[in-house]
Amino acid sequence: MTITTFNPPVRTLMGPGPSDVHPRVLSALARPTIGHLDPSFSTMMDEVKTLLQYAFQTDNQLTFPVSAPGSAGMETCFANLLEAGDSVIVCQNGVFGGRMKENVERCGAIAIMVEDEWGKAVDPQKVEDALKAHPEASVLAFVHAETSTGALSDAKTLCALAHQYNCLTIVDAVTSVGGSELRVDDWGIDAIYSGTQKCLSCVPGLSPVSFSERSQERIKQRKERVQSWFLDLSLVMGYWGNDGGRSYHHTAPVNSLYALHESLLMLKEEGLENAWARHSMLHQALKAGLEAMGLSFIVPEGSRLAQLNAVTIPSNVDDAVVRKRLLHEYDLEIGAGLGSLAGKVWRIGLMGQSASASNVMFCLASLESVLNDMGATINTGVALPAAQKATFG
Amino acid sequence: MTITTFNPPVRTLMGPGPSDVHPRVLSALARPTIGHLDPSFSTMMDEVKTLLQYAFQTDNQLTFPVSAPGSAGMETCFANLLEAGDSVIVCQNGVFGGRMKENVERCGAIAIMVEDEWGKAVDPQKVEDALKAHPEASVLAFVHAETSTGALSDAKTLCALAHQYNCLTIVDAVTSVGGSELRVDDWGIDAIYSGTQKCLSCVPGLSPVSFSERSQERIKQRKERVQSWFLDLSLVMGYWGNDGGRSYHHTAPVNSLYALHESLLMLKEEGLENAWARHSMLHQALKAGLEAMGLSFIVPEGSRLAQLNAVTIPSNVDDAVVRKRLLHEYDLEIGAGLGSLAGKVWRIGLMGQSASASNVMFCLASLESVLNDMGATINTGVALPAAQKATFG
Repeated sequence: MTITTFNPPVRTLMGPGPSDVHPRVLSALARPTIGHLDPSFSTMMDEVKTLLQYAFQTDNQLTFPVSAPGSAGMETCFANLLEAGDSVIVCQNGVFGGRMKENVERCGAIAIMVEDEWGKAVDPQKVEDALKAHPEASVLAFVHAETSTGALSDAKTLCALAHQYNCLTIVDAVTSVGGSELRVDDWGIDAIYSGTQKCLSCVPGLSPVSFSERSQERIKQRKERVQSWFLDLSLVMGYWGNDGGRSYHHTAPVNSLYALHESLLMLKEEGLENAWARHSMLHQALKAGLEAMGLSFIVPEGSRLAQLNAVTIPSNVDDAVVRKRLLHEYDLEIGAGLGSLAGKVWRIGLMGQSASASNVMFCLASLESVLNDMGATINTGVALPAAQKATFG
Repeated sequence: MTITTFNPPVRTLMGPGPSDVHPRVLSALARPTIGHLDPSFSTMMDEVKTLLQYAFQTDNQLTFPVSAPGSAGMETCFANLLEAGDSVIVCQNGVFGGRMKENVERCGAIAIMVEDEWGKAVDPQKVEDALKAHPEASVLAFVHAETSTGALSDAKTLCALAHQYNCLTIVDAVTSVGGSELRVDDWGIDAIYSGTQKCLSCVPGLSPVSFSERSQERIKQRKERVQSWFLDLSLVMGYWGNDGGRSYHHTAPVNSLYALHESLLMLKEEGLENAWARHSMLHQALKAGLEAMGLSFIVPEGSRLAQLNAVTIPSNVDDAVVRKRLLHEYDLEIGAGLGSLAGKVWRIGLMGQSASASNVMFCLASLESVLNDMGATINTGVALPAAQKATFG
């Protein structure tokens, strides 16, 4: 095999992430590498922290990006807040609640599962029942925006319930930050993790996290050390902390942090509420087109995410063939179903920079054209009569 | 605080890493992001694996970059190979042996320490004594190239000893890969981790690892699950594995992998032996200049790393002031001492792209000029009489 420089194809990314990365962010990424203890780098880190506090809507001092993808951010929350023998109420309504359970168990803690149907929001009544039935539970964990189904749960209500029953809250906001209303302080979220490659439209590889005073107290009272050296917040805080020092822990992913800085700056320039509104508005446009074709959403109206649109695949077309044709003929990526939804749904992402009017039009036109060409049972010519008549090659 | 786009200063990186990143690698980094399940990305991943096998000199199928910095690579090795109650012989002759101990203990295993003076290589006799005295030990762990001191240990001899006593070997090659002779298969290394920001001259954030058949067998025989979900090789292998599938585990750091691909390609083009020889030749040049000034190495000749030159700080100059002046007047980063060597040594890196004739001349001239200007007790005008007479501003 002769290996040469890799030139990736130029795709439009409308899957479950990564999303389209703006040229400003790619430019930032490619700036000259400096040392992770350089004073200029420290200044930039402080700015990243300030910008993350804005994105999370929090004053939490312990707010920073974990130097690894979202699943490491998840593990940071569980490994630091749990000790062996602790009980945690874990809500599962998709793939990522299941991953939370895995994390709880690998910490030697006990996961009390509250199950909801995939595609539904977490049911606050079931959560309250579990909180009542399990006074030994010390943490409530749930996914705010389920990337596997496109369901949005009511984080505010769930956090209020948790506190009523003296539980801390761990919230998966991988897909929500920057795309859906999220207010860490107002809602009383104690530990939260996200990813950079969804509605922040940065490159994948970092996981922004934030911890409330309450959760920091819990960490200080640990009896045993955190089982992961790499993710131990008591060590990481020496580098990202507020004491002015930058004690070496690990080598920060310098260039990825340039990119995160730039993407957060773009979010700040747009305004968080404006970004939420943009996602919502474009979701409505996409929805109108998809429904005009006859495609239906799996999530009930009212708990649908704007940024992740899961629709059922028409019965007479092959899932993989459609996605392959979109990728090869139009350089358009949409997402496959995950877990129990594999082969049953497509997940169309409208995340960050991918949430644009041009992407909505392009996606509707391409999808309708491919489905029509494959003889799918859809309402052709309804959504985009002109676009679907275009022929290529 | 008004935050604007971050434009980093352009530094010359001659510390303990990150090292200078070639424009080819920065260009690769900034190429358009594609999905982590895109077929084009899979092809690139296969190439990264092949190129890493070359850099490690191994045929190990389980060879891939962990999606996080070197310390996560270290944790991947320990967390997967150890179970609670296991005994591990850990050699410590600098900071990173101590970090290995931390990792062992956080896995619930027992670390049997073999200590050598900082700056010295690991003593094979002490290791053999420990292996004899502790037949219960199942792993020998040591650092090939100690970044904190610049000492190179004899990995080949240590691995042979370990196998003689039925131990697997875990080797820290963060600073050695690409800069020092290293032969994973020939030397019988069972688990190895490295970093991208040292002699590979890629951006920081990834940790190449490789596992022998023997270590994979050990992992398969585990009684308990790996305590880290994110680093569990049985899961990661589904994504980086050889079964042709790409089952989703976490979102790969797509752009960083473009960069790693390009930096590994550059290493392949140069040739691994040529890269080792280049590091060695430039170390000799730097050494001649430093010694002419009267600066002395802390590591005895014969076990000095070419890529990390730790020299004692002249007694009458302030460590921090010298480094600050080099940084601010010449945009030159050299490294401070770490751990018990803080304030006592400088660590001058010649890693990857930083190992160039121009960097050697620039570093000698700048250092001599600053030291001379500060009235340090060094042999001025010996190393570079012309350069040190240059005045700026």
